[in-house]
Amino acid sequence: MEVELKEILNDLDVLKRSLPDSTHNDSIMIKLQQRVEHLKNLAKSEPGRRSKVKDMSAEVVDSNPYSRLMALQRMGIVKNYERIREFSVAIVGIGGVGSVAAEMLTRCGIGRLLLYDYDTVELANMNRLFFRPEQVGMTKTDAAVQTLSDINPDVVLESYTLNITTMEGFETFMASLKNQNFSSTKNGTGVDLVLSCVDNYEARMVVNQACNELSQTWMESGVSEDAVSGHIQLLVPGESACFACAPPLVVASGVDERTLKREGVCAASLPTTMGVVAGLLVQNTLKYLLQFGQVSPYLGYNALKDFFPTMEMKPNPQCSNLACLERQKEYALAKPARDAAAKAKMESEASVAIECAVHLDNEWNISVVDDCEIEGKDAPSSSDTLPVGLVRELPSADEFQNTSVGEASTSVDDLEELRKQLEALNAE
Amino acid sequence: MEVELKEILNDLDVLKRSLPDSTHNDSIMIKLQQRVEHLKNLAKSEPGRRSKVKDMSAEVVDSNPYSRLMALQRMGIVKNYERIREFSVAIVGIGGVGSVAAEMLTRCGIGRLLLYDYDTVELANMNRLFFRPEQVGMTKTDAAVQTLSDINPDVVLESYTLNITTMEGFETFMASLKNQNFSSTKNGTGVDLVLSCVDNYEARMVVNQACNELSQTWMESGVSEDAVSGHIQLLVPGESACFACAPPLVVASGVDERTLKREGVCAASLPTTMGVVAGLLVQNTLKYLLQFGQVSPYLGYNALKDFFPTMEMKPNPQCSNLACLERQKEYALAKPARDAAAKAKMESEASVAIECAVHLDNEWNISVVDDCEIEGKDAPSSSDTLPVGLVRELPSADEFQNTSVGEASTSVDDLEELRKQLEALNAE
Repeated sequence: MEVELKEILNDLDVLKRSLPDSTHNDSIMIKLQQRVEHLKNLAKSEPGRRSKVKDMSAEVVDSNPYSRLMALQRMGIVKNYERIREFSVAIVGIGGVGSVAAEMLTRCGIGRLLLYDYDTVELANMNRLFFRPEQVGMTKTDAAVQTLSDINPDVVLESYTLNITTMEGFETFMASLKNQNFSSTKNGTGVDLVLSCVDNYEARMVVNQACNELSQTWMESGVSEDAVSGHIQLLVPGESACFACAPPLVVASGVDERTLKREGVCAASLPTTMGVVAGLLVQNTLKYLLQFGQVSPYLGYNALKDFFPTMEMKPNPQCSNLACLERQKEYALAKPARDAAAKAKMESEASVAIECAVHLDNEWNISVVDDCEIEGKDAPSSSDTLPVGLVRELPSADEFQNTSVGEASTSVDDLEELRKQLEALNAE
Repeated sequence: MEVELKEILNDLDVLKRSLPDSTHNDSIMIKLQQRVEHLKNLAKSEPGRRSKVKDMSAEVVDSNPYSRLMALQRMGIVKNYERIREFSVAIVGIGGVGSVAAEMLTRCGIGRLLLYDYDTVELANMNRLFFRPEQVGMTKTDAAVQTLSDINPDVVLESYTLNITTMEGFETFMASLKNQNFSSTKNGTGVDLVLSCVDNYEARMVVNQACNELSQTWMESGVSEDAVSGHIQLLVPGESACFACAPPLVVASGVDERTLKREGVCAASLPTTMGVVAGLLVQNTLKYLLQFGQVSPYLGYNALKDFFPTMEMKPNPQCSNLACLERQKEYALAKPARDAAAKAKMESEASVAIECAVHLDNEWNISVVDDCEIEGKDAPSSSDTLPVGLVRELPSADEFQNTSVGEASTSVDDLEELRKQLEALNAE
């Protein structure tokens, strides 16, 4: 189209030169040329793909795609933003939440994204962000790779067009999570986090199974069928409740959307609710990966009342998922090591505290009991009550080994209670 | 693009008629017209561009872009979703929040969008959603119209490439808000809501001035310079606090981004925080326009703690903005009419309640005092305490006329208190 517009400009130029002098004609010619120039800008069909960037720079120039992100360091929010390039995140389900989550992570400059979906783009998806009408008919993974690689060529994108709930799909899914070609993680997989953005119960149970087997930390997300509530949840195998330990709080009822469609009925959805849930999910992801702020174990969103419930869920010692029980056992066994690490950390902080004594020469061996010294010495007495200023990033589940079944079920009761509160709120 | 091409053809026609007869000129003119016609065909056949839809259908087929939105009716969330096509929304500032808000409203099928910005797209904007690298150098308004008209050709888009803080820009801004070509609103303007998505204090004060003068309801939004907090706020002139009544709670410090850039420093920003704020803003917009759920007068977002403070702010009787004082006076004067309307509404509900008496034949004139009747009769005694089930959509500010200056300043104290709480939270 640019070629055609250039030809029109040439023609106009020829015409202008052959015209008799007249202010009227001149003004029309100028207007015409301006219109065509404007169209040329509109029609830039060749995407101006930017070249890859070797290092993230904090330089404040208009051409630096990372300046506003690297500014997070100067603002004291993130210690080392550039670490984001080392991380791999897997997103299962590239729908209303997953596609926006993928775009956010891509724009943040994540190292590597693994995308899983079996579906194709339809016009009926246009009420959510991300996909464009010209992508109708493409697989969601292909369309996502097309858009995301244009937005940020620095991100390594891997797309898997498959259904994780089939035998074959599950095997490929597991193999891709284990692949350590890009980097390896503490837990021995090749990804740092799995984000579940699927729309049905079955697929969630499959992600849960995979993550429990691989001891892979993951985050769950969901939007209700009436489009006005949603949630995100952090799941650390063995440490927090798995998806099979307790039913989720705010989530689609579990009816597969395909089943619904066949009956001429569909779930409602809104770009607003899905955008908010994707935003909260990726914000929690950034906090988890780059270690800033408080990572939320659970965060709900009730759009009708702008109510955001939070809670923590311990694993269920009677969980039906065997891999979950294995992880719970491991977590309990690792308690002495965790305690020792916590103690070492506190002692190193206490030694820093002792250094605040001002007189290093002390001929008479006089000692003044300092505030900061007391703090440092008192703290290690209990491993569960952490000293002031030290906050656990994730809920401690060490207690579950000592609790009776009756006590453990309290958390399920709490859940029931919270659900009742939510229902009461919705009924108002 | 079709509109622009049609305008070029019109110009060519005018030019042709004013030209002296010459075969040379004629042949160039014909060639030009053919080229533009060819471009028109190219623009039409652009892959995937869907044709306009006359009515919003609830039919559940893959090709229906509105099926998931119309499902909100079947789910009982929205009474008449299709009304969204009647509304005009103005968005001032097409940056990280405004562009996403525009995309959300476009995908929701809003009737008409008015977009205002003076800036151009830069690579440094790529850490937020919406703009693509190939749009670098375009004005933000042009780039937005290009993307939005592709996504949903049903939305009427008006773009204003101007700076509202200049004299000329402000005049065009005011005139565009008053233009009732598309529809007229209760308050006599041509838009139903103005969304402020600007990044500096000066522009916010200008939007505030315009909306106070026009008695135009608007919503404010902002994201902090450290990128980890934001807010939205509803402002109804005369009824709730205007932007000059009290300083905003969570908002950029007011330093213009252009000033910062010159010194080689820039504010941080995250696609997550901006996506969440845009989502909350448009969700509040949908609730306000389509009358469902509770419209939030103020909603904050602290990303580090996932804390969402809410509050209400009454207008300041000593506000420095004269138009605000005018609107406050009008609102107070309209109190009897509001009370009468509320009374009428309650009485009509009470008469419905009386109809629940089962025996219409009553030979002995026996009357049983029914629960629902009592409710209906008791309620009108006080105009401020509404009966059960009736909730004010917006905070009532009738009280301010009866409060002393000391009492009025309590709301400012509350504000101070809330700010201290927020600061304490951040300091933790």
